[in-house]
Amino acid sequence: MKASRFFISTLKEAPADAEIISHQLMVRAGLIKKLGAGIYNYMPLGLRVLRKVEAIVREEMDRAGAVECTMPVVQPAELWQETGRFEKMGPELLRIQDRHGRDFVVQPTSEEVVTDIARQELRSHRQLPRNFYQIQTKFRDERRPRFGLMRGREFIMKDAYSFDKSREAAQLSYQAMRAAYQRIFDRFGLRYRAVRADSGAIGGDLSEEFQVIAATGEDAIVYCPDSDYAANMEKAEAAAPAHPRPAASQPRTLTPTPGKSTCAQVADLLGLALTQTVKSLVLATDTLDDAGQVAGSKVWLLLLRGDHDMNEVKVSKVPGLDAGFRFATVAEIEEHFGARPGYLGPLNLRKSVTIVADREVALMADWVCGANQEDFHITGVNWGRDLPEPDLVADLRNVVEGDPSPDGKGLLAIERGIEIGHVFYLGTKYSRAMNATFLAEDGKPAFFEMGCYGIGITRLPAAAIEQNHDERGIIWPDAIAPFTVVLCPIGMDRSEAVRAAAEQLHADLLAQGVDVILDDRGERPGAMFADWELIGVPHRVVLSERGLKEGQVEYQHRRDTEATRMALGAVLPHLLQKINQG
Amino acid sequence: MKASRFFISTLKEAPADAEIISHQLMVRAGLIKKLGAGIYNYMPLGLRVLRKVEAIVREEMDRAGAVECTMPVVQPAELWQETGRFEKMGPELLRIQDRHGRDFVVQPTSEEVVTDIARQELRSHRQLPRNFYQIQTKFRDERRPRFGLMRGREFIMKDAYSFDKSREAAQLSYQAMRAAYQRIFDRFGLRYRAVRADSGAIGGDLSEEFQVIAATGEDAIVYCPDSDYAANMEKAEAAAPAHPRPAASQPRTLTPTPGKSTCAQVADLLGLALTQTVKSLVLATDTLDDAGQVAGSKVWLLLLRGDHDMNEVKVSKVPGLDAGFRFATVAEIEEHFGARPGYLGPLNLRKSVTIVADREVALMADWVCGANQEDFHITGVNWGRDLPEPDLVADLRNVVEGDPSPDGKGLLAIERGIEIGHVFYLGTKYSRAMNATFLAEDGKPAFFEMGCYGIGITRLPAAAIEQNHDERGIIWPDAIAPFTVVLCPIGMDRSEAVRAAAEQLHADLLAQGVDVILDDRGERPGAMFADWELIGVPHRVVLSERGLKEGQVEYQHRRDTEATRMALGAVLPHLLQKINQG
Repeated sequence: MKASRFFISTLKEAPADAEIISHQLMVRAGLIKKLGAGIYNYMPLGLRVLRKVEAIVREEMDRAGAVECTMPVVQPAELWQETGRFEKMGPELLRIQDRHGRDFVVQPTSEEVVTDIARQELRSHRQLPRNFYQIQTKFRDERRPRFGLMRGREFIMKDAYSFDKSREAAQLSYQAMRAAYQRIFDRFGLRYRAVRADSGAIGGDLSEEFQVIAATGEDAIVYCPDSDYAANMEKAEAAAPAHPRPAASQPRTLTPTPGKSTCAQVADLLGLALTQTVKSLVLATDTLDDAGQVAGSKVWLLLLRGDHDMNEVKVSKVPGLDAGFRFATVAEIEEHFGARPGYLGPLNLRKSVTIVADREVALMADWVCGANQEDFHITGVNWGRDLPEPDLVADLRNVVEGDPSPDGKGLLAIERGIEIGHVFYLGTKYSRAMNATFLAEDGKPAFFEMGCYGIGITRLPAAAIEQNHDERGIIWPDAIAPFTVVLCPIGMDRSEAVRAAAEQLHADLLAQGVDVILDDRGERPGAMFADWELIGVPHRVVLSERGLKEGQVEYQHRRDTEATRMALGAVLPHLLQKINQG
Repeated sequence: MKASRFFISTLKEAPADAEIISHQLMVRAGLIKKLGAGIYNYMPLGLRVLRKVEAIVREEMDRAGAVECTMPVVQPAELWQETGRFEKMGPELLRIQDRHGRDFVVQPTSEEVVTDIARQELRSHRQLPRNFYQIQTKFRDERRPRFGLMRGREFIMKDAYSFDKSREAAQLSYQAMRAAYQRIFDRFGLRYRAVRADSGAIGGDLSEEFQVIAATGEDAIVYCPDSDYAANMEKAEAAAPAHPRPAASQPRTLTPTPGKSTCAQVADLLGLALTQTVKSLVLATDTLDDAGQVAGSKVWLLLLRGDHDMNEVKVSKVPGLDAGFRFATVAEIEEHFGARPGYLGPLNLRKSVTIVADREVALMADWVCGANQEDFHITGVNWGRDLPEPDLVADLRNVVEGDPSPDGKGLLAIERGIEIGHVFYLGTKYSRAMNATFLAEDGKPAFFEMGCYGIGITRLPAAAIEQNHDERGIIWPDAIAPFTVVLCPIGMDRSEAVRAAAEQLHADLLAQGVDVILDDRGERPGAMFADWELIGVPHRVVLSERGLKEGQVEYQHRRDTEATRMALGAVLPHLLQKINQG
């Protein structure tokens, strides 16, 4: 490709709304161009990156036996009503009416449509397993689109859906997709982790996120440097402490803490470690009558160590809270505790509540909690002596750096990541809702066991940039660079020697199947180099008249701090070797 | 590819709503699957065809110097309001509101968005010419979607847009696109014509349609077998007759024609040729006052030969009618003619009207027309003798088979076609509306001269099928077949010889880059052959144990009536030769 026939358009300044580096660089390098909030044109350079991402995804999906199809962007609401998602999904589901007033949605995913295909097309267990995928435009009407392609409204997703005859077979399909995802992300040349994720109501461990490691990532990834344990924050288990509960050593003491309503303030005031304090969270559950009206409510007290944060996903699995919970109202709190939030605790309750202690709290001694009396806390509290053992003990909290790994093989570390893929076992959730069955080996209809598997095609380049950039611009991995090699001839319009050498090297690289661009725009060297460093093409060759007089050109990888001089004849094999390494 | 890893799903019966053969065959062969009215899933086989169409289009667009990008499916209404199309376009423009109540459209084309890109990105004449294209999902909310992908609502279109600094440069860009389109349609292996089309308000000849020839086509294509003249019906010129007007030979006679209100009925009653009759069409034009209210109207009488049909596009170019016209009301007709439609004519008018005669009518003698008196016509009417020469003479009619070609090189013929491409010079229509300018060589801002160029990616396979099918199914041209070669082994599960030969040939063809599918599904020969004839793979090789014992296999092209036996070793070179021919 010659730059004069392509479209290069770089900017010195990033737009004001570009908060993160990938957004800034994608706009500045001319990869994307904003059309509206969360809606972007994919400009020629950006589209080349997307096409390379798609090609790798497609190859590995095909290799894994998935079959590509394309489902419509605009989908009739009827199917979405069958699963209830038309009503249940919030305003992020973009709803449309056509000229006849019929309801449609712009697809955010395609579980309903693919299940509709399956229930018509897959009639027998002999047609299973089956995996359909598409690489297609999606839309989610985000309340606050931002970060460029990282959290856009219109985006491209690869979504695959597997259909199996049994849970065991579905697990094999899941593992095959998981392996394909590893090959895909390996080929992208990105540092990533596959982390366990919560699989919601379906349970089990069959849900993993693929996270590109980046300091700027929105997600916290928990992993063990000494083992292969990795999970997202929602899922990561805080292992039960191995030590026994220490014996009580302090008397229980009502202690004035005027105006100190947080654990940190209390610890500070009393000169205690924050780890000696216990925080109280008050939840409530409702029971409904046949008409769906609240018939009664129950109040729960959750106890966490002062330095720990509640993990909602874990709390939502506590028996009794697993059908849904809410935070208690101030009235409910005053009714049961006789005090306002900030001074609550499990002692001196006005009315009984169910007490759930985090595993860590259950093994504490001599701890501090609110006294259920304004401006007072109690110190030296001990289980058994001052109050009964907790009604329930459970893992309620987010893990923190240094917690023991749940596999017992070391201590947990935390880093930031950007989710770019997700593999998920769905079970029969959609097939039951849509009555999608096949004839099983016993001749009876059975519901499909399903899985779904997504990759954010347009998010991936943004994640790659968050991980790979410097102050001059993007540094693409070879596999997804818009061009692999850029040839920068200096004074090509004046020097026949430079022109001839550049054209020849361009032709030779093309003949070897290398994705090369020759910058024949006639820019001055400084501007030309700045453009390509911003755009982030990994391999650069500079050809100048002075160098060519000595038969030399300069090679520089985008990560190199200096160029390497080499013979013109040596640069082609050098590039080929470098590219194959990449 | 092995069929067991792919997805083949054929149907014996076409769905009831499939009126045309391409729709029937695409559904039966499992290329597409209906999701809603005019909305289809592209199933794996169909998607393979689309990908091949796209690849050819992409290669030739790139070769012609166009640069690919992708514009959003969901587009903010603001840009569409700048050109007025948001209000002007009918309900076929699918309008959406997002969660904040802002207006959007689902793109039917992208003139607005690409012009918005150009006015930001193309600042100097030095950046021109420039051609951006995309291959992307479109939506038109057709009132009556039908014919499968031929007239769907959601479809894929390649749309390209050229930007030039002058009308002359824009014409070069147009011609470059026209040449690219010819290469594209040549490569598809379809019989097609490039026909002149009307370019609307912009005028000139810079608008051509690419029509796939098919008896079932919706469009009439006019062409001259003895020259390269070709145009669509709207555009095709009815040349002025070369003969002079014959002398009057009959007396003007008021003739009773009770109840005969059509030319055909009158000719029949009077024993005259239909070509001797003249039909009267009454139009009206309105003048508006400053408030946009109708201030006055004018009535026009158009005269066409009895066997000719009015061509609205031509009428809309008659001076005085070119700002818009309507059919006259019955009240207007009675006011001017003193009679009801069916017995109207240019003689004995109650109130004067402007008379526009078709070129043919202007040269007629002794003709028949309505008498402006119920149940009477006048025969033997002659210009000059019985009424003044017409106010205007113009080409008002559709051409008919046998008309002289406007280039004077023979007679016109008419065939049916399916429009699958359109190249169009737009001028400054959009750049003016959106104030899209660049700095011209004189340092002043100038409006872009634009062109737009479309190819119906999803319509093309349907058109190909309308042109290429038989009673057994589709017959794909090699270039866009879902697979080029199918290997049909008989009894592969029983015969190791058959399996080994089929697997080897499959591997050899793949190594040669041939797109081959090996049918390893274990179907019986009859069902297997019927499937592949329905699907329309052009080259088939049958391997059987009996044949292989003699070292023979059978080759059959989808158009062949019989198979050809050949040595196993000869089939690979035979296929390669056949494919290169195709």
